Amino acid sequence: MPSASQRIPPLVRPLISERAKRTLDLVEKFVNEDCIPADDIAEAQIGEGKQRWTTVPAVMEDLKLKAKSLGLWNMFLAKGHYKEGAGFTNLEYSFMCEQFGRSRTASEATNNSAPDTGNMELIAKYGSAEQKKQWLEPLLEGKIRSCYVMTEPNVASSDAKNVQLSIVKDSDHYVLNGEKWWISGAGYPTCKVYIVLGKTNPNHPDPYKQQSMIIVPAGSPGITVKRMMHVLGYDDAPHGHAHLIFKNVRIPASNLILGEGRGFEIMQGRMGPGRIHHAMRSIGAAERALDYLLARANASHKMAFGKKLSEHGVIIERIAQSRIDIDAARLIVLNAAAAIDAGDAKTALIEIAEAKVFVPKVALQVVDWAMQAFGGEGLSQDTPLAAMWGHLRTVRIVDGPDEVHLQQLGKRENRRAREVQLMIQKQLDETDRLFEKYRVARGVDREVPRANL
Amino acid sequence: MPSASQRIPPLVRPLISERAKRTLDLVEKFVNEDCIPADDIAEAQIGEGKQRWTTVPAVMEDLKLKAKSLGLWNMFLAKGHYKEGAGFTNLEYSFMCEQFGRSRTASEATNNSAPDTGNMELIAKYGSAEQKKQWLEPLLEGKIRSCYVMTEPNVASSDAKNVQLSIVKDSDHYVLNGEKWWISGAGYPTCKVYIVLGKTNPNHPDPYKQQSMIIVPAGSPGITVKRMMHVLGYDDAPHGHAHLIFKNVRIPASNLILGEGRGFEIMQGRMGPGRIHHAMRSIGAAERALDYLLARANASHKMAFGKKLSEHGVIIERIAQSRIDIDAARLIVLNAAAAIDAGDAKTALIEIAEAKVFVPKVALQVVDWAMQAFGGEGLSQDTPLAAMWGHLRTVRIVDGPDEVHLQQLGKRENRRAREVQLMIQKQLDETDRLFEKYRVARGVDREVPRANL
Amino acid sequence: MPSASQRIPPLVRPLISERAKRTLDLVEKFVNEDCIPADDIAEAQIGEGKQRWTTVPAVMEDLKLKAKSLGLWNMFLAKGHYKEGAGFTNLEYSFMCEQFGRSRTASEATNNSAPDTGNMELIAKYGSAEQKKQWLEPLLEGKIRSCYVMTEPNVASSDAKNVQLSIVKDSDHYVLNGEKWWISGAGYPTCKVYIVLGKTNPNHPDPYKQQSMIIVPAGSPGITVKRMMHVLGYDDAPHGHAHLIFKNVRIPASNLILGEGRGFEIMQGRMGPGRIHHAMRSIGAAERALDYLLARANASHKMAFGKKLSEHGVIIERIAQSRIDIDAARLIVLNAAAAIDAGDAKTALIEIAEAKVFVPKVALQVVDWAMQAFGGEGLSQDTPLAAMWGHLRTVRIVDGPDEVHLQQLGKRENRRAREVQLMIQKQLDETDRLFEKYRVARGVDREVPRANL
Amino acid sequence: MPSASQRIPPLVRPLISERAKRTLDLVEKFVNEDCIPADDIAEAQIGEGKQRWTTVPAVMEDLKLKAKSLGLWNMFLAKGHYKEGAGFTNLEYSFMCEQFGRSRTASEATNNSAPDTGNMELIAKYGSAEQKKQWLEPLLEGKIRSCYVMTEPNVASSDAKNVQLSIVKDSDHYVLNGEKWWISGAGYPTCKVYIVLGKTNPNHPDPYKQQSMIIVPAGSPGITVKRMMHVLGYDDAPHGHAHLIFKNVRIPASNLILGEGRGFEIMQGRMGPGRIHHAMRSIGAAERALDYLLARANASHKMAFGKKLSEHGVIIERIAQSRIDIDAARLIVLNAAAAIDAGDAKTALIEIAEAKVFVPKVALQVVDWAMQAFGGEGLSQDTPLAAMWGHLRTVRIVDGPDEVHLQQLGKRENRRAREVQLMIQKQLDETDRLFEKYRVARGVDREVPRANL
Repeated sequence: MPSASQRIPPLVRPLISERAKRTLDLVEKFVNEDCIPADDIAEAQIGEGKQRWTTVPAVMEDLKLKAKSLGLWNMFLAKGHYKEGAGFTNLEYSFMCEQFGRSRTASEATNNSAPDTGNMELIAKYGSAEQKKQWLEPLLEGKIRSCYVMTEPNVASSDAKNVQLSIVKDSDHYVLNGEKWWISGAGYPTCKVYIVLGKTNPNHPDPYKQQSMIIVPAGSPGITVKRMMHVLGYDDAPHGHAHLIFKNVRIPASNLILGEGRGFEIMQGRMGPGRIHHAMRSIGAAERALDYLLARANASHKMAFGKKLSEHGVIIERIAQSRIDIDAARLIVLNAAAAIDAGDAKTALIEIAEAKVFVPKVALQVVDWAMQAFGGEGLSQDTPLAAMWGHLRTVRIVDGPDEVHLQQLGKRENRRAREVQLMIQKQLDETDRLFEKYRVARGVDREVPRANL
Repeated sequence: MPSASQRIPPLVRPLISERAKRTLDLVEKFVNEDCIPADDIAEAQIGEGKQRWTTVPAVMEDLKLKAKSLGLWNMFLAKGHYKEGAGFTNLEYSFMCEQFGRSRTASEATNNSAPDTGNMELIAKYGSAEQKKQWLEPLLEGKIRSCYVMTEPNVASSDAKNVQLSIVKDSDHYVLNGEKWWISGAGYPTCKVYIVLGKTNPNHPDPYKQQSMIIVPAGSPGITVKRMMHVLGYDDAPHGHAHLIFKNVRIPASNLILGEGRGFEIMQGRMGPGRIHHAMRSIGAAERALDYLLARANASHKMAFGKKLSEHGVIIERIAQSRIDIDAARLIVLNAAAAIDAGDAKTALIEIAEAKVFVPKVALQVVDWAMQAFGGEGLSQDTPLAAMWGHLRTVRIVDGPDEVHLQQLGKRENRRAREVQLMIQKQLDETDRLFEKYRVARGVDREVPRANL
Repeated sequence: MPSASQRIPPLVRPLISERAKRTLDLVEKFVNEDCIPADDIAEAQIGEGKQRWTTVPAVMEDLKLKAKSLGLWNMFLAKGHYKEGAGFTNLEYSFMCEQFGRSRTASEATNNSAPDTGNMELIAKYGSAEQKKQWLEPLLEGKIRSCYVMTEPNVASSDAKNVQLSIVKDSDHYVLNGEKWWISGAGYPTCKVYIVLGKTNPNHPDPYKQQSMIIVPAGSPGITVKRMMHVLGYDDAPHGHAHLIFKNVRIPASNLILGEGRGFEIMQGRMGPGRIHHAMRSIGAAERALDYLLARANASHKMAFGKKLSEHGVIIERIAQSRIDIDAARLIVLNAAAAIDAGDAKTALIEIAEAKVFVPKVALQVVDWAMQAFGGEGLSQDTPLAAMWGHLRTVRIVDGPDEVHLQQLGKRENRRAREVQLMIQKQLDETDRLFEKYRVARGVDREVPRANL
Repeated sequence: MPSASQRIPPLVRPLISERAKRTLDLVEKFVNEDCIPADDIAEAQIGEGKQRWTTVPAVMEDLKLKAKSLGLWNMFLAKGHYKEGAGFTNLEYSFMCEQFGRSRTASEATNNSAPDTGNMELIAKYGSAEQKKQWLEPLLEGKIRSCYVMTEPNVASSDAKNVQLSIVKDSDHYVLNGEKWWISGAGYPTCKVYIVLGKTNPNHPDPYKQQSMIIVPAGSPGITVKRMMHVLGYDDAPHGHAHLIFKNVRIPASNLILGEGRGFEIMQGRMGPGRIHHAMRSIGAAERALDYLLARANASHKMAFGKKLSEHGVIIERIAQSRIDIDAARLIVLNAAAAIDAGDAKTALIEIAEAKVFVPKVALQVVDWAMQAFGGEGLSQDTPLAAMWGHLRTVRIVDGPDEVHLQQLGKRENRRAREVQLMIQKQLDETDRLFEKYRVARGVDREVPRANL
């Protein structure tokens, strides 16, 4: 089997450094040989009941030690953007991120795990020296974990302007009151810090200046975990998705990031790379699902109607379509990574949105086909497929549902309509001129649809 | 509006030379300002009835002169593969080819038109010096045109081994007998040469050694055009798709290419780049369809229920989805072009097949949405959309139907199943070992599905 | 092969009279044995060029004589609604209509052809005794044909309020000025009468009271056929789709139907049954396409890779999916027919819209699969498939594009949202009560999402 | 809101008795007002951990009492087929079954719950008087529950001939050894009886005569519940899906049903109605999901970008498409029910398979759209949607995966290919005759594709 670096698409091969290729192959080996076998151990170690939210799986600490010893740490912090990282471009990191997506433990084992990655980027970019010292350093070392606290239960959070948690200045503190849910990672016992979006200036005339971002130590008095949200029957322990209540939570004013009213700005600065990380991990998941589909389709002891599944044309077509769609999806994400490398997340908005919409649909389809090939077993706890499906289904929603991205992308594309209309009009005028020049009749049955454009 | 070179995807930008970018922008300008306006003129100049097959549109000759004067000629012959070309890589040429796909006249105007391109490659690669002198030179100069004569009416031609036209040696001649159809370009009055696949050795034990390829001058005694095939009501004049009868057609033995029994080998050598040319032209067509969709969706005089179409969410979503899918399709083709550049058409089999299957589905969808936005007008002669649809529909069939490519691709992907099974087995074994090492119970409800793989 | 009456779905069998079953089988036999073989004759008899619009195919007159002698005439006029018809319910007629859809000549041969059917219904329902005598009688006898003249080139006609043709009273005449296109049937030499929608009262405050409907003899001075519209390369001669110019066309005031300002009302009364006729004919076309798919998939002389197409699982799956989807589509249309029988076209709005949207998608898919099985041949003039596709594609547009029907249907369904919200709220309240009654804890992780509804 | 009986599709209304309509409305009221509010109670009452498999929710017993008092009991046993039932046709029952599908408790509350329904049918049809007395009576009274024990972990059980559990005669007992999984209902504390498929005659030359069916009391010595299978994170307690081990389980020989070697025959007799019950329940689930979609889309406190979701065209289109597809799906199932009523499950094979394939795809799509409208909440425990999705996903697998049904249906449809070929050939011959009769030229460009069929 060619290694991960040998499987880099021909189009992209010239753009990946030798060092990145070597690291990529090391990542692949580490994921396949260490992380994937540890996935079930980590799950078993957290056990059942309330214990699931108080246990750090021992195997995870061992994986982290090994990852560090291999030099596989913090690769997500992109070269040229952050000095703290491993010096890879977003494009190069994308391939590593794909490998992480094959396993449930690999991202965390190498300290490339959401939401910490986005939070570390955020603090590195916008945090004060003091904030960096207190929170960024232990995060970079993998000693603590963090949450990103934005979504609220009582508003449509796909539109961040709707956020309502109140942040009120009270001398040298801020007081937080409100409710948040889907706070991923808050279940983790080592989660020590929340980055919270709320409103300091609810009456500011500019709706994009009402929000602020503040660093809140986990366990601050007044924070209650109301419950953990499920995803299709999964609690996703030990990370989990918490429903939190903030009641008169007092936080030192120095914890505010950048200043009052700059929450929206920070939020937008945080967005880009994280979305392509999700996307590349989804591709890794899709590749692993395709592996499982291949394995099951060629199982000689589970013949259907005298044939292996892979001898049925319908199954072969699905395998082929999976190959095609995964490869297309990967290129779409790599293009977004290259766009970020060439500029930043803002200049890469279109490419990121394309990846955001395209990838989970493909990955869900591949996993669905793999589940179907396994029959009931594919929906059960006996393969990684069902949990993958649950996770990938959330990707169509987190960071904004598909529908919102499609509307934004469509409106952006639609902006060039006027120019297009003018170009077509000019072409039709030129056609008129040519008809006269060549003295040829237009034909009774053809009409230039000028007025219709 | 950013120019074509400015719209090169970020991922690919570093791989395109400045010279190619300049040429690309020149191509775009030539296509938009000269070729597209001339499309209707060319159509009108060939007129009606039998005249459609005897007329070379005057505007075409003028376009060719202009293209030559601009240096836009024979760009398809790839750098490093053919010395006769313009010195661009397949990857670079792909972008130009996309522009050609926007217009019905542009490929021919720049001598980058199928099936001549494949035929020129073929003669350049496999032809004798004499054959090159007689046929390649005038083809390269755009003085004559050519056909590729393979498909037969009475067999499933998607499997080339089925070809039955008989080629029998008779002293220093070969005598051809048989029937061929879908011979594109045979309607053109300047089409002077056919490259014909048939069987010289029908009893050869190796089914891949029975075929030979021979150069047949158009109009040789014994060749009859039985009729022209239609595509969804279109005759595609002046090129057309001929149904030909070969009856005792005598051709000098020196016209055989490479030697008896080498037809299959030549055929396979011809295949690759042509398929990505079709694919990139299809993307150009899809982009132009999207332009028309934008133009119609923003037509202020054709409001539906008080709104422009572009104010309806469903239309905006289609615009966005078109943007995403076209961009994905383009990357898939560019990856195939890069694969050919890095090796040849044989090493790029998978990437080419992916493009072959992925692209026409996307393009047909975009054109269908554009037609639907125009209503009846979109199906009529008043926009380029309906004819585009007819043409793109054939792309799912020519060079082999989708279904055949999917089966081949699926079987190829399936070859790695055994290795995947072993890898998964090894991971499960390692999980077993870790369960023992960490002394953690597996849980009653989880089972390693070893035997099921 | 079971006859058409034996193939009536089990659900519907008890609802079809014995007389209708006998007639249905007679129709099936007539269509298969007389009409389908005549389709190519009719096409050949109209010839080429301008002659296509001046010729009534001789075979058509013979078919009409035979149909009359068999008693197969005017079955579309529904029992209980029109005394002039053959006495079948819309449900019963639907099955006959499906058979007509298999052939291009059958509807006309039995005088069940659009747009005459809708026009006859219209005159029967709204016309004066004089209008009936002059136009309805010869239409019912099949001596003349007619058009329905509504769509205009310069407005979005999917919204009939946009219609602009002006109808101005001038003493005892009306004077018509305007432009119309997609006037189907206007090419036919026997087309003698137009039913025209225009505006008599453009300033009426109620936008639904501005339109009137008037009977216009074909060939009235001032009417010009500007050109014939094409559909994907087809001119659909001899019926055709005309682009007409009305310039000071003077029509006796007595030709106005019902009175000024009642055009919208008449238009809506005309709509229902015609849409399910289109839908059932589309199903007939889909069934014939499936027949062709079966025939090709089992052609033993056109093997692909050593197998008949029907030995490939992908093809078998398409055959099965075609069977399922056609059967679902038929039931949807039959349900609409039953709804019209039970009330009228207004009470059956939802059922009709469902059929309108569901059927052409299915039929286009089946035809597309059949075309693909035939390869290039399937797109050509050698099978009925390509022309079928062209025709079916228009069904997604005529009588309003899919998108419009979906929005209307969706808004109608959405009207029950408030009631649904109240029901859910009541259920949640009752759940609360039960939690107290049974003294069971709700569980920390479950929350009644009351506020979110 | 019109009642369930008022919403019966117009096509089917004449076929439903007044008594059935009254009962249907009673069912609807019971489901909406009693069962749905109890769903969460039942879930809460079974609690957490091992207790989930030992508790019968108290609310369920109350629901059963109320259902009996309303006369809503055992409606599944079809009139004319079983004397023990409530006297409704399968068609009539289908509408009630749809209502049950809206709630997780309703089927059981009215003793219409799988797998008991199929098991009761089976014993009523094939059981001895003694077997009926011992097992059918308490099942009919709802005092005990049952399992159907067929699927095995180590073979592809979609092909029942693969079943391997061994049943060996030992004087007046049978001894069972083997492994079974996905045994739904085995978790239920009141489950007292298993109907087990295994092989008594593994060497019988006819592979359809090797299997036998035997009644096994739950808890017989030698049966172990190895574990409970999960479905996408759900354990589906208290029913559950058990993985069972049979080790030397001794069962009296009189428990064998019908006789040795008749297992396949019994299995096939059991199949039909159960499949349409699943299908109709799925439609009920889809309708409830559509209700939730409507409720969320019109939630005025969760606006997205200044609008309610229902003001976005994309959402309205999904609502409309849901309405259409659910209505089509319902008709497909009703047609299958009518086919069973008119004959039996064997004569209705095609109609049942159509329902089996068509319905879950539709239902999954509607639920997916509803989940997406709710965002993260839709995937969580706060709406019934996520659990619905998990359950509906299994419907594509239980009783055979879609793919198997499609292949069988396609092959069956393909059987008529020869007759179709002959019919087309005859039509082409007649066309030939007509060309001669009318002395019209065929045209150079048209050819009868005789040889290609």
